[in-house]
Amino acid sequence: MSYFSDVTNICWFLEAEFAREVVRLHTVVGNAVTEGRHIVVGTGSSQLFLAALYALSPTDAPEPISVVCASPYYSSYPSMTNHLKSGLYQWGGDAESFEKEGPYIELVTSPNNPDGHVRRSKVNRSQGVLVHDLAYYWPQYTPISGPADHDLSLFTVSKSTGHAGMRIGWALVKDKEVAKKMTKFIELNTIGVSKDSQLRAAKVIRAVSDSWEQGNSQEGESFFKFSHKQMANRWKQLRLIVERSGLFSLPKFSPAFCTFFKQVLEPQPAFVWLKCEGNVEDCESFLRAQNILTRSGKHFGVSPKYVRISMLDTDENFSHFLERLSALHS
Amino acid sequence: MSYFSDVTNICWFLEAEFAREVVRLHTVVGNAVTEGRHIVVGTGSSQLFLAALYALSPTDAPEPISVVCASPYYSSYPSMTNHLKSGLYQWGGDAESFEKEGPYIELVTSPNNPDGHVRRSKVNRSQGVLVHDLAYYWPQYTPISGPADHDLSLFTVSKSTGHAGMRIGWALVKDKEVAKKMTKFIELNTIGVSKDSQLRAAKVIRAVSDSWEQGNSQEGESFFKFSHKQMANRWKQLRLIVERSGLFSLPKFSPAFCTFFKQVLEPQPAFVWLKCEGNVEDCESFLRAQNILTRSGKHFGVSPKYVRISMLDTDENFSHFLERLSALHS
Repeated sequence: MSYFSDVTNICWFLEAEFAREVVRLHTVVGNAVTEGRHIVVGTGSSQLFLAALYALSPTDAPEPISVVCASPYYSSYPSMTNHLKSGLYQWGGDAESFEKEGPYIELVTSPNNPDGHVRRSKVNRSQGVLVHDLAYYWPQYTPISGPADHDLSLFTVSKSTGHAGMRIGWALVKDKEVAKKMTKFIELNTIGVSKDSQLRAAKVIRAVSDSWEQGNSQEGESFFKFSHKQMANRWKQLRLIVERSGLFSLPKFSPAFCTFFKQVLEPQPAFVWLKCEGNVEDCESFLRAQNILTRSGKHFGVSPKYVRISMLDTDENFSHFLERLSALHS
Repeated sequence: MSYFSDVTNICWFLEAEFAREVVRLHTVVGNAVTEGRHIVVGTGSSQLFLAALYALSPTDAPEPISVVCASPYYSSYPSMTNHLKSGLYQWGGDAESFEKEGPYIELVTSPNNPDGHVRRSKVNRSQGVLVHDLAYYWPQYTPISGPADHDLSLFTVSKSTGHAGMRIGWALVKDKEVAKKMTKFIELNTIGVSKDSQLRAAKVIRAVSDSWEQGNSQEGESFFKFSHKQMANRWKQLRLIVERSGLFSLPKFSPAFCTFFKQVLEPQPAFVWLKCEGNVEDCESFLRAQNILTRSGKHFGVSPKYVRISMLDTDENFSHFLERLSALHS
């Protein structure tokens, strides 16, 4: 009865294959410990973020657990946390000013979206549990300092290989019960994760690992060398234009030794976190007048003097962006 | 910068292509009105069910809106509705005994999962909104009585073509604001829907429409003729064994004219809704002793004398099931 696909029979092979490729990629890159971890596949890391909140929230608490993150934080965290008015968890705002007693969930995004900085937990109290969003902890964006070793880390093919449209992410989870509860959430939310996407993501990840292991002995260039060069090139152009303008400032990053490329390198984040200097209070409106669409700092819990701009758009769009930005002078 | 896929640019083409194929399929089958409808694509119809609850719940109500469905109802409705303890909506139980005043959401699953019966709304009060789950309203399962014409209907490739692993469903939505809010939910939940899956689903749906339109003039058989024959064959074998056993009963269905096949046909649901007759009170345990795994009626809001069994498993599993069932006699 070939038309009716028997999903349950093939899914274990598929998920195991995907998990194998994830372990290999982390081993090749050296950016996360996979030993003793359960790998939970999700419909992008967004679904895994929600799955983590579900799994880490106490079920019988008198009130929802607070979910906090130091500002500037990923602008979708508050709305993702609060949109269903869940009795399990609720957005607790900036981790720096969080003073409520009792249990909490702290989100640690490193490198951080939007500003690209490497981060650690800020609250540091005994009743906290941490979710590490490591979507950008890949060598094209930031020097790899060593294998991340946390209780619960989130990754996504969207940022590691650039295949956002596949909607595939994965979580590395130490605690088996937490991993099981995350999987339960995914079942209740979307029953499972697209097998077509998992199959393709496994192949893409394998190609990325292969391209590195075959190294420069082969004709092709490794994926990470290629993408690192692209990012370096874009950042170089951007820095030049920003400096010339005299209107903006960029975050300052310290170069660091990258254990993957085995050299000291500068961070080159997936986003520009641009600050309008001088009298411009609303940087988003200021840039929109120049046909540059950005996301205001106010969505990230900070001043509208800041905006976030993607560094991962197409060559064509990126070059339009640079053109329009370079038309602005003090 | 070819490694970084530019999702936003291609997604409109893709979603438009998928929507075109959905419209064509409904036109070919004649099972749903698509004129004046917005098509919302989701990660399976489960995500669209949750999106519908989000979109239809009042945002400023003093208490969560009740979500009801006549029993026996799809066993996942209660847990999907309640797992996040949402302040927007909560499970209100069996629609037949629902007596609370005020607004409510009623789920109408037709043909019904688990029992295969054609259904209409049961509560019928002015403040209700309806969500029609039409996952099984396809000619291989039930005679098509005409194009369904509701405010909000859910469909899925899982049941229409059998590709459950793709996690692709769609909603036909009359009200533009409801459709927009459902899309907003999908953004907050998984950002979007796998493009790989959408692309493949569009091709599969096209092949199904093509196979019907090319009819019998070509060498191949149409998908719906093939799958109808398969279901008929399975149901015939099952009925024989159930009758011989003297232990069980099946729902009684009336034959009806199918506007698609243009003949009077029997329903042949995707599930068997089996009742243990006589002294057996726990039908699930009774069958488990025979190595037949089923889902007890208690999960569907009714007596454990009932169980649900899939009719869509592989040929091999289905024939094991028949073998084991035929070993049971009164």
